[in-house]
Amino acid sequence: MGRIITLTTDFGEGSYVAQMRGVILSLAPEAQIVDVTHHVASGDVRECAYILETVIPAFPEGSIHVAVVDPGVGTDRKALTVHFAGRTLLGPDNGVLTAFLARADTVREISEAALFLPEVSATFHGRDVFAPVAAHLANGVELAAVGPELEGAPAAVPDLYAEGDSGVVIHVDRFGNLITSFPSGALDARPSAGIAAGEVLVTRRARTFGEAEPERPFLYAGSGGRIEVGVRGDSAADRLGWGQGTRLTLLDAEGSEGEEE
Amino acid sequence: MGRIITLTTDFGEGSYVAQMRGVILSLAPEAQIVDVTHHVASGDVRECAYILETVIPAFPEGSIHVAVVDPGVGTDRKALTVHFAGRTLLGPDNGVLTAFLARADTVREISEAALFLPEVSATFHGRDVFAPVAAHLANGVELAAVGPELEGAPAAVPDLYAEGDSGVVIHVDRFGNLITSFPSGALDARPSAGIAAGEVLVTRRARTFGEAEPERPFLYAGSGGRIEVGVRGDSAADRLGWGQGTRLTLLDAEGSEGEEE
Amino acid sequence: MGRIITLTTDFGEGSYVAQMRGVILSLAPEAQIVDVTHHVASGDVRECAYILETVIPAFPEGSIHVAVVDPGVGTDRKALTVHFAGRTLLGPDNGVLTAFLARADTVREISEAALFLPEVSATFHGRDVFAPVAAHLANGVELAAVGPELEGAPAAVPDLYAEGDSGVVIHVDRFGNLITSFPSGALDARPSAGIAAGEVLVTRRARTFGEAEPERPFLYAGSGGRIEVGVRGDSAADRLGWGQGTRLTLLDAEGSEGEEE
Repeated sequence: MGRIITLTTDFGEGSYVAQMRGVILSLAPEAQIVDVTHHVASGDVRECAYILETVIPAFPEGSIHVAVVDPGVGTDRKALTVHFAGRTLLGPDNGVLTAFLARADTVREISEAALFLPEVSATFHGRDVFAPVAAHLANGVELAAVGPELEGAPAAVPDLYAEGDSGVVIHVDRFGNLITSFPSGALDARPSAGIAAGEVLVTRRARTFGEAEPERPFLYAGSGGRIEVGVRGDSAADRLGWGQGTRLTLLDAEGSEGEEE
Repeated sequence: MGRIITLTTDFGEGSYVAQMRGVILSLAPEAQIVDVTHHVASGDVRECAYILETVIPAFPEGSIHVAVVDPGVGTDRKALTVHFAGRTLLGPDNGVLTAFLARADTVREISEAALFLPEVSATFHGRDVFAPVAAHLANGVELAAVGPELEGAPAAVPDLYAEGDSGVVIHVDRFGNLITSFPSGALDARPSAGIAAGEVLVTRRARTFGEAEPERPFLYAGSGGRIEVGVRGDSAADRLGWGQGTRLTLLDAEGSEGEEE
Repeated sequence: MGRIITLTTDFGEGSYVAQMRGVILSLAPEAQIVDVTHHVASGDVRECAYILETVIPAFPEGSIHVAVVDPGVGTDRKALTVHFAGRTLLGPDNGVLTAFLARADTVREISEAALFLPEVSATFHGRDVFAPVAAHLANGVELAAVGPELEGAPAAVPDLYAEGDSGVVIHVDRFGNLITSFPSGALDARPSAGIAAGEVLVTRRARTFGEAEPERPFLYAGSGGRIEVGVRGDSAADRLGWGQGTRLTLLDAEGSEGEEE
């Protein structure tokens, strides 16, 4: 079995992802294509960065990871490859690779057109640029062959990690659990803290859903190292009216004027 | 190509399934991961049991099957492995494996922490317990190494198979066809029977959709061995207002007081 | 790694696709199954034909492609295999393979029951006929063994390619972009033409989304060789109220009475 190439996009259902799969398998028949997800919210660079942060470290060294959430496709935004802990990531220079920039060995600009499809469309670089470059890397092409080291700083997405007490909902999972930008360590560090948006404050805590009080929003240390908000047997997003991008505050619940849920 | 590991979850889109894939491929690079579905209705143990019943026998001997519909994750619910007709299933002890319990060679409790990830979270045993154990089994670890034979009876989900004339809608497929808990053999055995919920009774029958009267609900022998209710060119679920969990009665249609659809 | 078998269906989520995967891997353990999509609109033969047209040429020679959008399953509609440019396609004789008929080397009827599952259901030939035949072909069974050359003309779906100035929306992608039946070459050939439906006319053009005026529908040459209609940062389908099947007219915009969007 050849090298792993994972795909993370906001293409949803349809033919776009399948075209990328076909291009990869035509160039690198032994590559092992693995889907991360194709349902990143349309154009949501921060959600894509979060998903990559959570998923990529679970894959083995040598694996290659393509991320295409790319509203600027066809403009002069650059395409990047980031090498990090033995793994190679490819994506547009718009922040999708934020989680790995600080730990990157090298950040290169993808510019060697000989590695692209012969005709590059204006709107689908996932198929015409990223897929063939990933396939060539899987075939053993050297990373240095894709282009020169990036001059200047790559783009980073804001709010992927909370700064101080101000945060945001980064992702809503299938169950309606809200993944926040606050590190889960803050739960231990501040035993009386809650999370608020507008007038609503959540202070209850539980370790598991089975131990939580039914129908009451609670905070817990999520499996991805962030504070999450859940409701046993229901959607926290629906119950609280919070969604992706909702601004949050981590605050000391005692004496708060917030209306506790 | 290594052994097949299938995944069946209620995780939907997002990063959870991809984390499981990464864990498996990190431990068992030759494993062949195959998705069953990740869209089991949230926490619906019975639908998961039905899907496994339908799908697993189509896979070859030696295949390994992980089912994670697990609202009790992190509590003291046990994790099980069931060996059945040369296939190995893994899942929580909550009924997801019901279809295979009566025919199982062995039912073991998964308890050997050396086969788990080093850190086990409270909320994601799919990644931290089931994925690595499946990977170790794919690598040739003996089934007996995962833990002792289960003491006592494993959990079974009610209503997977109809008892007498009382049944339920187990699953609604993409077309809006209703898969019931009644065996399709009942159609031949009771030529004048219909299926009712509330005041609505369906008695028409057809062999195929092409032969059915348009827009009229009809009963047919489904490809999974159960009575199904369909509408040619439309959704039976929408037209009848029936859905997953709707209680059904199999009854003799002649002289019925039901209002026939 | 064995031969590639792709799957394109309207089965959505659930167990149907997984049953096909199991049947294929039981018969051809070395086959490499690749999903195209399982979210073709229910019974939409034209959308399926479009997706295959776009995707199949990206796959390498020797690949096998199964398409199951099959509202006539179980009736006397035939099952076909089409051989085209080294690739083999299988599907019902209802138009799903339209894009390849004119370029086909051979069109055969699939009739050799020895290649089917032992029991063929009335409603699921994807599992019982197409999956096992594809697996046998992957194992090296000769194409001629599946059945005789088709007598008469295979079914073709109307409106896959626009005739003159009259066209249709064939597909709406995840972003709400509208893929039409007009070839993108018409943009260059008719610099002042727009696309209209009812009273609404779109005449703006852009090369990329990044260059387009925000919130204004525009025409562009899509990555699949057709004229598409998009809106930067929004869904063209929502904004225009156009959807799959909307009838379109390509017309000279100057002097038009249409209300320009």
